[in-house]
Amino acid sequence: MELEALSVGQYSFIQNAYSFGFAVMAAATLFFWLMKSEIAPAYRLAITITGLVTAVAAYHYLQIMLSWGAAVDVTSGEVISTGKPFNQAYRYVDWLLTVPLLLIELILVMRLSRQETIKRTTVLGGAAALMIVLGYPGEVSSAGGLRFVFWVLSMIPFVYIVYQLVVGLKESISQQPESVKNLINISVYLVIGSWLFYPIVYLFPLVGLEGGAAITAVEVGYTVADIVAKAVFGVFIFMIAMRKSQEIEGTASTVSKPAAAAENETSKPS
Amino acid sequence: MELEALSVGQYSFIQNAYSFGFAVMAAATLFFWLMKSEIAPAYRLAITITGLVTAVAAYHYLQIMLSWGAAVDVTSGEVISTGKPFNQAYRYVDWLLTVPLLLIELILVMRLSRQETIKRTTVLGGAAALMIVLGYPGEVSSAGGLRFVFWVLSMIPFVYIVYQLVVGLKESISQQPESVKNLINISVYLVIGSWLFYPIVYLFPLVGLEGGAAITAVEVGYTVADIVAKAVFGVFIFMIAMRKSQEIEGTASTVSKPAAAAENETSKPS
Repeated sequence: MELEALSVGQYSFIQNAYSFGFAVMAAATLFFWLMKSEIAPAYRLAITITGLVTAVAAYHYLQIMLSWGAAVDVTSGEVISTGKPFNQAYRYVDWLLTVPLLLIELILVMRLSRQETIKRTTVLGGAAALMIVLGYPGEVSSAGGLRFVFWVLSMIPFVYIVYQLVVGLKESISQQPESVKNLINISVYLVIGSWLFYPIVYLFPLVGLEGGAAITAVEVGYTVADIVAKAVFGVFIFMIAMRKSQEIEGTASTVSKPAAAAENETSKPS
Repeated sequence: MELEALSVGQYSFIQNAYSFGFAVMAAATLFFWLMKSEIAPAYRLAITITGLVTAVAAYHYLQIMLSWGAAVDVTSGEVISTGKPFNQAYRYVDWLLTVPLLLIELILVMRLSRQETIKRTTVLGGAAALMIVLGYPGEVSSAGGLRFVFWVLSMIPFVYIVYQLVVGLKESISQQPESVKNLINISVYLVIGSWLFYPIVYLFPLVGLEGGAAITAVEVGYTVADIVAKAVFGVFIFMIAMRKSQEIEGTASTVSKPAAAAENETSKPS
């Protein structure tokens, strides 16, 4: 990455984006975990993991900020490279952990049968980890050909995950309570929509987009995509859990076995 | 260790592995401790210790990262040694504490009689500590002969522990509830499987594996083995505790603990 191609304005903008990313992820984590106790026990696992995703992301934004600070400096109005490498790979380390987890939190908040939960979290989590692992060799390689080969390889699990989310989950989503169906659909499209950014950006170096503006677009774009896929997505997971909790409580006041009744209602395997 | 034999790519890969190790261990710790309150009181000791193991590991990955940062530097595309030693021994300090504890968490989650719990935790914990203590002198010695002698000595408790886990625990495992038997067996083989990596790596210097690729394989391999033996293993312990908690709640009462009833209803394995 030609960091010296950056203007001071671009340098600051990227730094601000990282700091914003850290602040959003850390704030989201605190929010989810502070609100955990207000949610019905059945959904606390989903909310704990939702906060875990943003916590891990916050840690990596901190690392990226530190690496950026060590790699780039500004002296008398000029952006200079210190000679230390900027570790872009922290993003991959982050995704390896957070991308499987954020698919798992979606499955958990749906509260499917135990068997289906195990099957879907394993398949989706595994495919997500494979997608990230296959992306890494291309990202760190300087050869354009290798970059393209791993892009293609990585797109296979990517497309599979999208298919599983849109088609595979269709029936399970149709059995969710009316009040949260829309929220779940939005969450699914939020994931897919924000993810589309990554494979596009990955190809930038191949088409010669490498100047200061391209670096800025990539770094700020990654940050925005991360925020949507983890923090905003997490807020939707939280809203789903909250609404389902309120419905459990709603029936609680009339029957003695409230959660059970509500639960049976929603999880009947047709 | 000839750190200057590393390429910049290998250097970064190792650094990323350490950071990943730290992130996984810290995230696992938070997860276990946040979920502790959702688990039946009888299994909270096991879950607390499960989180303790990953917390201690997270601390040591932080120390390893700092030591790595102090020992190695990258200047204009070259990996250079700063002259400060890289403290590989932090791994031993870590294992001395975490390896006995992770065997103890397995015994605790099985919830054996008080007598058997005390006997098994003492024997397994003691053998594990002995195994680590005997490995250390060989690791820090530069003489190949000494390294081999302590490898053999350390393998004695190692084999004893494997025997105890596979044969000694057989009867106790057979008395566990059907719903968790499989999970316990997987946990046992997860420990044994991930542990096999350590004695093999220990012998690398003896057979002349010392270049950049060997260092990378060792450091990344140790990290993966640690993650499997502590965090992934811990998730299995958590699942065992969670499933047992749900069964306790299910039988405890049908009136006051509604969510458990729902759980039984929805998770019937057809």
